Amino acid sequence: MKIAVSGATGFVGRHVVERLLGDGHDIVAIARDSGKGAAMPWADRVTFVPYDLYRNPGALTARMECPHVFVHLAWPGLPNYRGLFNLTENLVAEIALFRHLLEWGVPHLVVAGTCLEYGLQFGPLAEDGETRPTTPYGLAKDTLRKTLQLMQATQPFTLQWMRLFYMYGPGQSEQSLLSQLDRALAEARETFDMSQGDQLRDYLPIEGVADRFARVIGQKAVSGVINCCSGHPISVFDLIQRHLTANSKTIRLNRGVYPYPDYEAMAFWGQPVQLRSLGFP
Amino acid sequence: MKIAVSGATGFVGRHVVERLLGDGHDIVAIARDSGKGAAMPWADRVTFVPYDLYRNPGALTARMECPHVFVHLAWPGLPNYRGLFNLTENLVAEIALFRHLLEWGVPHLVVAGTCLEYGLQFGPLAEDGETRPTTPYGLAKDTLRKTLQLMQATQPFTLQWMRLFYMYGPGQSEQSLLSQLDRALAEARETFDMSQGDQLRDYLPIEGVADRFARVIGQKAVSGVINCCSGHPISVFDLIQRHLTANSKTIRLNRGVYPYPDYEAMAFWGQPVQLRSLGFP
Repeated sequence: MKIAVSGATGFVGRHVVERLLGDGHDIVAIARDSGKGAAMPWADRVTFVPYDLYRNPGALTARMECPHVFVHLAWPGLPNYRGLFNLTENLVAEIALFRHLLEWGVPHLVVAGTCLEYGLQFGPLAEDGETRPTTPYGLAKDTLRKTLQLMQATQPFTLQWMRLFYMYGPGQSEQSLLSQLDRALAEARETFDMSQGDQLRDYLPIEGVADRFARVIGQKAVSGVINCCSGHPISVFDLIQRHLTANSKTIRLNRGVYPYPDYEAMAFWGQPVQLRSLGFP
Repeated sequence: MKIAVSGATGFVGRHVVERLLGDGHDIVAIARDSGKGAAMPWADRVTFVPYDLYRNPGALTARMECPHVFVHLAWPGLPNYRGLFNLTENLVAEIALFRHLLEWGVPHLVVAGTCLEYGLQFGPLAEDGETRPTTPYGLAKDTLRKTLQLMQATQPFTLQWMRLFYMYGPGQSEQSLLSQLDRALAEARETFDMSQGDQLRDYLPIEGVADRFARVIGQKAVSGVINCCSGHPISVFDLIQRHLTANSKTIRLNRGVYPYPDYEAMAFWGQPVQLRSLGFP
């Protein structure tokens, strides 16, 4: 299939593109920075379209053929979840973008959601459960999803809303926990400052996330909200220990230096019911 | 106080302006159509600013002084609750408008909400209860409210979200139920086509709505979501009977001609807890 991927040079995008190429798909990779695009390992196996989707979404139609699937991963400004720009700029531009994609006739949308749509809810979270976002980012994604679902009433299309939880692996943000840990190890520091680490989260390796995208895209019968997660909570402390063990490293952990973030519940994880129907554990 | 009222020539606006003038406030009435403004009974007692708030919200600051209170009632395109423009145009323009009002320094916002924020929920509805909008209009208002509440985290201001239920009285839309009934009576028709009429709704006379706005504006301690309603459900059939009795009229009611609207629950009404704290019944 001809598949467009926005945010193709981002953490999720670069892996999703690689995985979809492996399945033999014809990929149009979209990102703002063509230099970043050229540096990707898959650069010579895709059609790269350098494009700012927020600036002039309507003109994208002149730059490429209408794809069978549009995988939308771009979202500028992360990880600033609390910035109002998520609503005042991004949400506004996203709604305009999807209007154009649907007018163009794209029949199948795969869009990155976020566990921050749930807000401060505890425990195992269901795909059909209520959302109560408490951050501008979470509210913007939540409203975007609801808007797309309302758009389906007037124009039928497939919507696969991949609600992402936590991820780690090659290409992750420099600010992410394991990137910081790796930097401390590379610099041979004696200690690593962290939160208490007892918070429970749901983590997937990024290659597992890309695999889930690829399988979902091939199964249009699975649609709506799809929790893209492991279903198994792990404490951040254990996550760090596991990473150290896997890399045969040690470092003294200074637990409790940083407070827990106020926009995340202490213990929550996803129920990946839809992914289980596709055979994932 | 200096109070700006947008949507001043609309059904709610015209009555709110009259009521606030009665309290001795200094009113800037904002509406797109200056002809409509000139036709208002209060035309020579207000400063009228003909303005399209959606076109260039930033330039409003050059047309008037910063008010103590901004009462925002404008919302183009009603009663088309299902039109996607509510999200793709109105919500987008509303967020931009409020950004400008807050940058300008308006300290006190009074904004019209809607019972359609609740979606298809039954029974008595609480101000702090969950919202589950099922229409683009309901979702747009719901997201606007949540956006304003998140904006309060970075810039303190008073927000009084007047969640409107059903209203009737002078100036109501030609398409409203009682307008249609009055027209049938004026034309001396024998019958009036209606739904079965058993649906339960919460109605206030428009003068009562204006009175509630005026009282709330004077009480900044009452803020957040304020259900602007009677708290007492009445069937649409009884509402019509009451209207006929009050006007000493009769007409044969053809019940069941129209289906119930699919975007409204069969029986719901508001709990006006905040208004009761101000002495309303």
